[in-house]
Amino acid sequence: MNHKVIGKIIGKIMILEGIMMLAPLLVAIIYKESYLYILSFAIPSALLIIAGGLLQLLKPSRSSLYQKEGFAICAIVWIVMTIFGALPFVINRDIPNYIDAVFETMSGFTTTGASIVKDVTVLSHSSLFWRSFTHWIGGMGILVFILIFIPESNDGSSLHLLKAESPGPSVGKLATKMKMTTRILYLIYLGLTILEVVLLLLTPKNIVDGKVYKMNLFESLLASFGSAGTGGFGFVSNSMEFYSPATQYIIATFLIIFGVNFSLYYLILIGKVKEVFKSEEFKTYLIIIFLAVVVITFNIVGKINSFATLEKSFRDAYFQVASIMTTTGYTTVNYDKWPELSKFIIILLMVVGAMAGSTGGGLKVSRLVMAVKGCFIKIKKLINPRYVVKSKFEGKTLDDNITSDVFSFFVMYFLIAFIVILILSTDPVNGKTFIIDKKEVTHGFVSNFTATISCLSNIGPGLEAVGPYGSFAEYSLFSKIILTFTMLIGRLEILPVLILFNIRTWKK
Amino acid sequence: MNHKVIGKIIGKIMILEGIMMLAPLLVAIIYKESYLYILSFAIPSALLIIAGGLLQLLKPSRSSLYQKEGFAICAIVWIVMTIFGALPFVINRDIPNYIDAVFETMSGFTTTGASIVKDVTVLSHSSLFWRSFTHWIGGMGILVFILIFIPESNDGSSLHLLKAESPGPSVGKLATKMKMTTRILYLIYLGLTILEVVLLLLTPKNIVDGKVYKMNLFESLLASFGSAGTGGFGFVSNSMEFYSPATQYIIATFLIIFGVNFSLYYLILIGKVKEVFKSEEFKTYLIIIFLAVVVITFNIVGKINSFATLEKSFRDAYFQVASIMTTTGYTTVNYDKWPELSKFIIILLMVVGAMAGSTGGGLKVSRLVMAVKGCFIKIKKLINPRYVVKSKFEGKTLDDNITSDVFSFFVMYFLIAFIVILILSTDPVNGKTFIIDKKEVTHGFVSNFTATISCLSNIGPGLEAVGPYGSFAEYSLFSKIILTFTMLIGRLEILPVLILFNIRTWKK
Repeated sequence: MNHKVIGKIIGKIMILEGIMMLAPLLVAIIYKESYLYILSFAIPSALLIIAGGLLQLLKPSRSSLYQKEGFAICAIVWIVMTIFGALPFVINRDIPNYIDAVFETMSGFTTTGASIVKDVTVLSHSSLFWRSFTHWIGGMGILVFILIFIPESNDGSSLHLLKAESPGPSVGKLATKMKMTTRILYLIYLGLTILEVVLLLLTPKNIVDGKVYKMNLFESLLASFGSAGTGGFGFVSNSMEFYSPATQYIIATFLIIFGVNFSLYYLILIGKVKEVFKSEEFKTYLIIIFLAVVVITFNIVGKINSFATLEKSFRDAYFQVASIMTTTGYTTVNYDKWPELSKFIIILLMVVGAMAGSTGGGLKVSRLVMAVKGCFIKIKKLINPRYVVKSKFEGKTLDDNITSDVFSFFVMYFLIAFIVILILSTDPVNGKTFIIDKKEVTHGFVSNFTATISCLSNIGPGLEAVGPYGSFAEYSLFSKIILTFTMLIGRLEILPVLILFNIRTWKK
Repeated sequence: MNHKVIGKIIGKIMILEGIMMLAPLLVAIIYKESYLYILSFAIPSALLIIAGGLLQLLKPSRSSLYQKEGFAICAIVWIVMTIFGALPFVINRDIPNYIDAVFETMSGFTTTGASIVKDVTVLSHSSLFWRSFTHWIGGMGILVFILIFIPESNDGSSLHLLKAESPGPSVGKLATKMKMTTRILYLIYLGLTILEVVLLLLTPKNIVDGKVYKMNLFESLLASFGSAGTGGFGFVSNSMEFYSPATQYIIATFLIIFGVNFSLYYLILIGKVKEVFKSEEFKTYLIIIFLAVVVITFNIVGKINSFATLEKSFRDAYFQVASIMTTTGYTTVNYDKWPELSKFIIILLMVVGAMAGSTGGGLKVSRLVMAVKGCFIKIKKLINPRYVVKSKFEGKTLDDNITSDVFSFFVMYFLIAFIVILILSTDPVNGKTFIIDKKEVTHGFVSNFTATISCLSNIGPGLEAVGPYGSFAEYSLFSKIILTFTMLIGRLEILPVLILFNIRTWKK
């Protein structure tokens, strides 16, 4: 292991995080918050910049990295970011318990959006901003971000880092012309986020029980950070429920946009629009969304709220499908009260997730398509032992290596899920009954199962106790630590975290 | 497709089933049941023997079979057996609805043990006998059975049939010396069953609420059929709950014995006892049982029934772990009321299942071990791209082909499970509330999830509405048909059924 290079890279990330913390610091000043809030961001920011600066004094003998080092660094970087990113919440007492703060911060960076805050209205503007800002930072990846600004040797080291952090089975050809492409992708990300902010500012107000819901600049920014990163932290009670229909439609549509592989936008930019519609993953993604919305709309209409119009049912279905499939987690309705079919479709969407190369999590649509095709290949081989694989995905023949990798990812995903659920089953919260949104809920298998899938797929809410109106607050500190790691494992797609904790990685 | 050979083989199986139906016919005569019961077995029996005899007149031009034909025949045979095997229940009105009867019969042959009969005490002796006898027939496999008696050409056709029906990832070397070995395995099966019957006859009586529970010959036979095939149909109210502790210990121990790969008994018979303890799958199987029993014992002691002694808790844990892991489904306790941890361990055991080559179902311990090892191989390859696979299972190097097959089986298992749960979620029973064993249960995700796993792994009971004291009776007929196929898919380990319904199989 090349410890000095690792130290240097981590140092750079720390400096970057220190600079990013100046944004919530500015918010605290604008909203005239007390010195405690200003200090809560100023102190960690200074700490990060100084410590990160000191690490730059390291003189590595070799600048290149092995792939395993790339994976390990990636996992370390995300842990370091979280450890420091949680400090402001503890200092300003918005989240007094450090484990809770770490959970919340990891949930932010990994764009999960699962929260231990039961009432977000008590949080300060600066804390709310930092919380949602972590979504935006984590969405496109922390290491990817740093690669834009910092010159690196062109020996593949950067590629190893990128590979470890990128969501989806393959970085694809685009990654080779990396630095240029990464900048363009980040510009697309920035551009789409700004577009969403502007559109949200134009939406009309909505009045519910005498309270006015209208997206001001602050709320538009937060909503857009959460959508762009497909994170989903709420910043008013009941997430997006009380905003105007126009606001809900805009957010849902942007969620679907951010769940698309960013390479497709690059293709549009360079004028290859036809190529976009050749993407099997894109077509499957749209078909799944379409089918889910149609089925849920007709399944819920008139069932939950007899006054709900077809439009309201369609809007809720469209919003929830977009939110859950892109693994965001914003809500406009308590889908835990939906009929069983709609609830189970939500669980399926949780597992599937968004497109590879997007900011969303989950198994990814591409993996699902490849796994299904891989199963058919196995059957064809049994029927005809001399069968030569002709099945393709995105124009590439699905050879044994590719399908085996995809299959193994599914197996690891479910093995890890089962282990986490087993651990959560030991939590004393099991068997306790809560009243959530006027519905009696006993904490048990459904809560643990969906909490695990929700963290592993970086979604946010699950069902029952961790449903849209529930929270992760009731879990023990131990369970929260486990779920914090689950989010990281999910965001980095399992392997970097396993490699980090494998002793072989650290052997010569 | 060699239709004539297929017809001939199916005919032979029909004759065999016709002969087997003489056993419940005899029971009806012994217990002096009405003519309706005698006819209910005599008519289908005669039908089967005549139709099967007529099929023997076919003159196939070629006697050999392709592997795909072997798979297809296997699926057809099980369907034919079920279609005819269900007739007696309908004729004697014990299960008046034919779909229900088919569900029950498929549940019998596949050794699932899931039942739509809410109160088994209303069934006649002959029906009870036939129900449990199907477990015993299905346990070792129908085709395997026929191979013992009927001379087949030695060109691999029989091997293809055997391969399609055998549980577990590989038939192993033993299958090559097939006919001889099959006979020995069936003799072991028969011997162990007889031993269990004898031991159960020796157990003391137990008196509960003035009612005497003592295994007579009839009950000993039924209990042993259900254990040997790891089926699990009950024949008194509350399954095995009210029998004496000695009875419960004997049954649980025999369940564990029948969950072992029968090749190991063959090894013992030929004096290679040391080889048995070299089996990784056997060791893992015992370790899982041991850990599950210990954890559940201490998790439930004093929780469910404050009067329950440590012995009673241990006995319940031992019995339930043995019953669920071997995918039998007998119960001594309503484990749906256990604490969350114990309940989730039950779910995990449902998915894992017994050893390959046993009469049990599930994913199989060997596949789990190979999948976990396969994941580690993937990680090692990422850490060191030049890594050469050295991991072995049962002495055989785990090359890419093997792990890829195992992975694909996991993926198919979960894909099929998700599709079945999705279909069950459309059942009108969802959302309805039932009182089961004084506990209010709302039919929903947990019921559908465990019903699916229970059928796919051929277990029997699940949790909540389909828990040990619940039943599958409330599902719609459509759901029952789906679950009937799910049991078949599980018993034949997915591929034969998929191949049967694949048009390519039927092309030239």
